[in-house]
Amino acid sequence: MKASIIGASGYAGEELIRLLHGHPNVEIAHLTSERHTGERISTLYSHLLNIYNKELESMEDVRRIAEVSDVLFIALPHGHAMKIAKSVSDLPLRIIDLGADYRFADISVYEEWYHVDHIDPDADRAYGLAELYRDQVRSAHIIGNAGCYTTASILALAPLVKARLVQMDSILVDAVSGVSGAGRTPKESTHFPEFYDSFTAYGAVSHRHTPEIEQALSNVGGAAVTINFTPHLAPISRGILATCYAKMNEGVTPEQIDAAFAEMYANEFFIRLLGRGAYPATKCVRGTNFCDIAWHIDPRTQRVIVFSAIDNLVKGAAGQAIQNMNIAFGLDERAGLDLVPMYP
Amino acid sequence: MKASIIGASGYAGEELIRLLHGHPNVEIAHLTSERHTGERISTLYSHLLNIYNKELESMEDVRRIAEVSDVLFIALPHGHAMKIAKSVSDLPLRIIDLGADYRFADISVYEEWYHVDHIDPDADRAYGLAELYRDQVRSAHIIGNAGCYTTASILALAPLVKARLVQMDSILVDAVSGVSGAGRTPKESTHFPEFYDSFTAYGAVSHRHTPEIEQALSNVGGAAVTINFTPHLAPISRGILATCYAKMNEGVTPEQIDAAFAEMYANEFFIRLLGRGAYPATKCVRGTNFCDIAWHIDPRTQRVIVFSAIDNLVKGAAGQAIQNMNIAFGLDERAGLDLVPMYP
Amino acid sequence: MKASIIGASGYAGEELIRLLHGHPNVEIAHLTSERHTGERISTLYSHLLNIYNKELESMEDVRRIAEVSDVLFIALPHGHAMKIAKSVSDLPLRIIDLGADYRFADISVYEEWYHVDHIDPDADRAYGLAELYRDQVRSAHIIGNAGCYTTASILALAPLVKARLVQMDSILVDAVSGVSGAGRTPKESTHFPEFYDSFTAYGAVSHRHTPEIEQALSNVGGAAVTINFTPHLAPISRGILATCYAKMNEGVTPEQIDAAFAEMYANEFFIRLLGRGAYPATKCVRGTNFCDIAWHIDPRTQRVIVFSAIDNLVKGAAGQAIQNMNIAFGLDERAGLDLVPMYP
Amino acid sequence: MKASIIGASGYAGEELIRLLHGHPNVEIAHLTSERHTGERISTLYSHLLNIYNKELESMEDVRRIAEVSDVLFIALPHGHAMKIAKSVSDLPLRIIDLGADYRFADISVYEEWYHVDHIDPDADRAYGLAELYRDQVRSAHIIGNAGCYTTASILALAPLVKARLVQMDSILVDAVSGVSGAGRTPKESTHFPEFYDSFTAYGAVSHRHTPEIEQALSNVGGAAVTINFTPHLAPISRGILATCYAKMNEGVTPEQIDAAFAEMYANEFFIRLLGRGAYPATKCVRGTNFCDIAWHIDPRTQRVIVFSAIDNLVKGAAGQAIQNMNIAFGLDERAGLDLVPMYP
Repeated sequence: MKASIIGASGYAGEELIRLLHGHPNVEIAHLTSERHTGERISTLYSHLLNIYNKELESMEDVRRIAEVSDVLFIALPHGHAMKIAKSVSDLPLRIIDLGADYRFADISVYEEWYHVDHIDPDADRAYGLAELYRDQVRSAHIIGNAGCYTTASILALAPLVKARLVQMDSILVDAVSGVSGAGRTPKESTHFPEFYDSFTAYGAVSHRHTPEIEQALSNVGGAAVTINFTPHLAPISRGILATCYAKMNEGVTPEQIDAAFAEMYANEFFIRLLGRGAYPATKCVRGTNFCDIAWHIDPRTQRVIVFSAIDNLVKGAAGQAIQNMNIAFGLDERAGLDLVPMYP
Repeated sequence: MKASIIGASGYAGEELIRLLHGHPNVEIAHLTSERHTGERISTLYSHLLNIYNKELESMEDVRRIAEVSDVLFIALPHGHAMKIAKSVSDLPLRIIDLGADYRFADISVYEEWYHVDHIDPDADRAYGLAELYRDQVRSAHIIGNAGCYTTASILALAPLVKARLVQMDSILVDAVSGVSGAGRTPKESTHFPEFYDSFTAYGAVSHRHTPEIEQALSNVGGAAVTINFTPHLAPISRGILATCYAKMNEGVTPEQIDAAFAEMYANEFFIRLLGRGAYPATKCVRGTNFCDIAWHIDPRTQRVIVFSAIDNLVKGAAGQAIQNMNIAFGLDERAGLDLVPMYP
Repeated sequence: MKASIIGASGYAGEELIRLLHGHPNVEIAHLTSERHTGERISTLYSHLLNIYNKELESMEDVRRIAEVSDVLFIALPHGHAMKIAKSVSDLPLRIIDLGADYRFADISVYEEWYHVDHIDPDADRAYGLAELYRDQVRSAHIIGNAGCYTTASILALAPLVKARLVQMDSILVDAVSGVSGAGRTPKESTHFPEFYDSFTAYGAVSHRHTPEIEQALSNVGGAAVTINFTPHLAPISRGILATCYAKMNEGVTPEQIDAAFAEMYANEFFIRLLGRGAYPATKCVRGTNFCDIAWHIDPRTQRVIVFSAIDNLVKGAAGQAIQNMNIAFGLDERAGLDLVPMYP
Repeated sequence: MKASIIGASGYAGEELIRLLHGHPNVEIAHLTSERHTGERISTLYSHLLNIYNKELESMEDVRRIAEVSDVLFIALPHGHAMKIAKSVSDLPLRIIDLGADYRFADISVYEEWYHVDHIDPDADRAYGLAELYRDQVRSAHIIGNAGCYTTASILALAPLVKARLVQMDSILVDAVSGVSGAGRTPKESTHFPEFYDSFTAYGAVSHRHTPEIEQALSNVGGAAVTINFTPHLAPISRGILATCYAKMNEGVTPEQIDAAFAEMYANEFFIRLLGRGAYPATKCVRGTNFCDIAWHIDPRTQRVIVFSAIDNLVKGAAGQAIQNMNIAFGLDERAGLDLVPMYP
C-alpha cells in the first residue's frame, strides 16, 4: 500500500512518518509542503537523517500524487482538505483528513465555528473516531479524523451519555494539552523561557473543539448536549489530559457507572480502563495510540469525574489516522500501532 | 521585630526565609527542624550559603524560642501547630500557622476531614486570608493562614458569591499546582524522569482543601455551598492556576460580573484584575504575593469561568503569612512583599 | 528466540521490554526483580498495562530461567552479573550484561575502580560496542554491554585515535546526561522541584566510565591514553551529549579529520555523521539506537572538538544490548531497532 | 538617583527593572524600545501590571532622556551603544553598556570578532567585572559590563592564572547556558516542543565571548592566553554553569590551588567559594548576583577543573550592571542585590 502525506512538515505529518515507518503494510510515496517545496524532509527534521531524505513536493501536484497513492493523509489547516478532496474525488483512493473539514455531519455547525463556506458538503464521509463509528469509517470515502481534545473528551464521556446515566445539560470538560498541539511555528507564548515554567488557559468558551464534542455526545446520547470546554497548555510536549464532569441522574449507582465503561470498551484494544478511583497520566500513553480512562464518583455533589489521557499526536492525530486507515483497508486495526509507550 | 520559624526545613519555611530577608522590619531569630536539629540551614539548602548559616534547633525548645520572638511562623503538617500554640498561649507573641489547624471556624469540619481531635478549639483565631478577613487578622492571637489551592479558589469566586450572581450549588474548581506544593521529600511520582513530561490529577473528590473553600464561600455568600474540587500536578515548580466554574443566576449581565470583581478588589494591592476575556499565567506572579484574576462568560451555557493564578509558596503560603503578619502588627501591608515577579 | 531480563524493574530493564516488544524474532520469557518479586510489571510501570502483565520473579530461580532462555539480559548494579553468569556458565545461552562486570579486558582495572574482586575473570567475553568490536561480540559467550557515557565518548573519538590524528595525552570529555541515567530510585537531588530548572556536574575526576573510555581508546589507538571525563546532569529525561576535545597532531588537515570519520563509519547504520561544523542534539536520537556525530576544528588552538549524541537508555543501554544480541545470533543487526526518533 | 534603560524590552532590560525596583537609591526614569515605542511595558510584560505601566519611548530621544538621568543602562545588540554614548558624551551621566561595545581594551579585537568599525575608541571606559577591575569601574565614564559566559569563566579561572598555577596554553571552557541567554525573540530552535527535552551545543570555536575571556585572563596572568570555549544550551531558563579545565604547572599542590581562590575572593560578597570537591548548581544562584565556585584536582592528568555557576540575567547581565553602578556612584556595592536565591 502506498500512502502520501499532504502537509508533511508539521508535527502531525512528521508523526505520520514515524508511525508509518513501522507499519508492515505501508510505504510512504509522496510528501508535500508548500513552504518547503524542494527541500528534503531530513533538512527540516534532522532526526530523519538517513531514514527519510525524501524531497518535499508542492500540493499543486496533488492529482499526480493521488493517482499513485492508495491513501492520502491531509495534515493541513481547515479549509484546504475540502479543496483537495473534491479535486480528486473521482479517483479510487481513500482520504483521511486530520483537519476539521470533514468532521461535522451538520455542515452549518462547521461553517458557523470555522467561518468558511463548505465546498464539499455531500462527500461520502465518516467521523474518524473508530471506537464510536467503526462501521462508517470502514466504508466512507473520506474520513474526518477526530480532533485531539475531542478524542479524549468523547471517549471519556460517551459511555455515561450512551447509558443515560448523567444529566445532559451538566457536562463540562476541563482539558490540558502539551505544546506540540500548538504546532511547530514559533511564537512568543511558546518560546522556551516564556513557557518552561508556566501554566495557563486559552480559548475559554470559544474553542472549536466544543461543537465537535457536542456533536458526538448528542449523537451517542440521543439528545442535544451543550457543554463548557476549557483548554489549557502545560509545559510538556505531548499529551492531553481531559477532566470531565457530569451530574449523575438520580439513583445512579457507582456500579452502573463502572458497567457503562466496561460494556462499551470491553473489546477496544486502544482503550485502557484503569478503573474507578485511578488517575491516568500522559506519560503512560506517550508515543502510543492508547486512551487511558479512570473515573471517580462524588456522593456529596452527585457528580462523576472522568479522566482520560492520550498522546495528542498519536491517538489525537497520526495514530488515530492510521487506526482509521487500517479499518478502511481491512487490515489488522493494530497494525503499526502495537507499541509500548516510551517511558520515561 | 523578631520572627522565628518552627519547621524551617520545608519549602514553605525556606520561602519565609527568602521573603523575611528582604523585610525592613523583621529579623529572623530562631529556626527549627526535628529531622535536622543541629545542622546548619545552609547545609540543607546550599543556596543560603553565606546568607543564613544559622543552626537548626529542636522545637522541644519552642517555649524558649517563643519567649524571645514577636511572631512565630509554624510550617508543619497539621496537628502540630495546635500543640505548640496551646503550650505558649500565655505568651504575648502572635502565631501564624501555615498548616490547617486553625483554618476552620467549625471544629467538627476540621476533625472530620483531618481525622484528628482538635485540642485547642477555643483559641482566639482568624482565617488568614486578608482580602476577606482583614479585621479578624488584625486582632487575632492565632492566624490560620489560608491554604494554597484555597486562596486561589476563594479569591476567584468570592466576588460572584458575595454579590449573589451565581447558583450556589453549581460551583466547581479545577486546579493545577506546581510540584513544590507536594513538599521536598522525594517520591517516585515526583522523581524527575517520572514527572518532567507528564500531567495528571490526584485527590479527586477527597482533597482537604475542599471544605476550606466551602467554608469561605458559604460564609461570604450567606448560604451553604458544596463544591467539586479537583487538583492536578503540572511539571512546574511553583504556581497554581485555578479554573472555577459557576452557573450565573438568570438575568445576570456581564457588566454585573465585571462590577463584582471591581468593587471587591478595588483597593487590594495584591489582587490584579486582568479583566473579562484575559488569561492569567503562573509565570506572571512567580515569586510574588500577587493573585491575578480574569473571567469569561459563556452565553451558551450561562456559566462564568474565573481563572486565578498565584505562586503557591508565596500568596499560597509564605507571602500570605507575611501579609498577615504585617496586618497583625500594624505595618505597611506590602512591607517585604513589594516585589517584581521573576520573569522569565 | 526467548529472552529473559534479570533486573527488569529499572529503566534499562523497562526499555528492553519496550524495544523487544517490537523485535520480530524475540519473545520475552521471564522478568525478575528482587524488590518486587510477585508483583506484576504493569503494577510498577502502569504504561505497560494490558501489554505486559507478567509477574516479576526472583533471580534466585535464575538457573531455571536460564534453562528456557536463549539470551539473558542482566540489568543490575555491578557485582551481580558475574555471580549469575558464573552460575549458569555451563548452559548454552548467551549473556548480555548491561552492567560493568564484563567490560574490562584488564580485570585489575575493574577491581581498582569498582572496589570488588572479580570472581569470573576467565569468562569468554567481549566488550559490547559493536562498531568497534563486532567480531568479538559475534562469538563471545558473555557480552559486556558498553556504558552510556562511554559509548558516546568512544564513538566520537575512536576515528581520530585510530588514525593517529590527535595527541593521545590531550583528550578530554565533557558530557551531559539526562536524569534517567541516574535510575528510578527517587533522591532529593532528582526530586522534580530541585532539578527542573538546574544544571550541575558530578563525579569529576572519579566517574567509573573514565577507565572504560581509556581502555577502548588505548586499544584502538595502540597507546595508553589517560583522559579527563566530567559528567553533568541536565533537566531532560533521556539523552547524552558528549563534547570531546583533543589536540591535533602537527600538520593534520581538516580533510584528514573528515576522512577518518567517513572511513570508520561508512557502513555503520547506527552512526549518523552530521559532518564538520554541525551540532547533534539529543532530541534527534530520542528513543532510537542512533549515535549522531559532528566535529569542529579550531585553527587557533589546533584542537578538534567532537560532539556525539545518543539516547542513554537505547544506544547507551537497551538498544545496544539488542544490537549485540542481533549480532551474536546472526540476525539482521537492525532487527527491532529500525525506529524513527520520537520527535518532538 | 534616576536611571533610564535604553532597550528595555529584552530580558536584560526587564531584569534591570525587577532589580532596580528593589534598589533603595534608584528610581526608574525612562524606558525605551524601538519596536514597541508608545506601548506600555506592562503590555509587553504582563507580570509588570500595576507595578510598571510606563510607556516605552524611542531612543531617538536619548539626549533628552540622558539629560534627566544619572545613569543610562544600554541593553542593545552591539554597535548601538557606541553611537548612543558618543552622542551624549558631553553630559555628566554615567553609562553602563550591557553589550560588547566597550568591553575590549584592544579595539582591533572587537572589530575583528564583531565585524564593525568602532566609532568611539577613545572613550573613558572600564571593563565591568568588579571583582577584577573595581578601581577602573569606580572612575570610568562608560562601563562595558562583562558578558554572561565571560563572567562565569573569568571568575573561575582568574585566581589560578593570577597565581601562575596553570599552563596558559592549556585552558579550555565548556559552558552551558539557560535559554533566556538567547533573548526573547521566538525561534524554531527555542520553540518549547523543540527544546524542552533536548541538549545541544552551538558556537563552537567561534563564539564572541572567547576573546573577552582571553583578554581578561591574559591581563590577569600577564601572558597571552588562547583558549577553547564551547557553549551549550540546556532546557532551563536562567543560569550558566562553566566547566573550566587547565593543566597545573609542575609541583603545584592542591593547597596552593585552594589558597589562590581564598586569597582572591576573601572579601568578595558575590563570590561564594564552595571549596575543593564541591559542585555548584545553577538553582542555587537563581535570581541573585552570586557566583558560586568549586574546584577539583585530578592527579592522574594534572588538570584542575573549576566549576562556576551564575544567573546569566543577574551576575551575567543586570545584576552585574547594578553592582557596577553601585561602585561607580559610591553606594554600598550590595544595594539592591542583597537577595536570597529563589529556590525551588
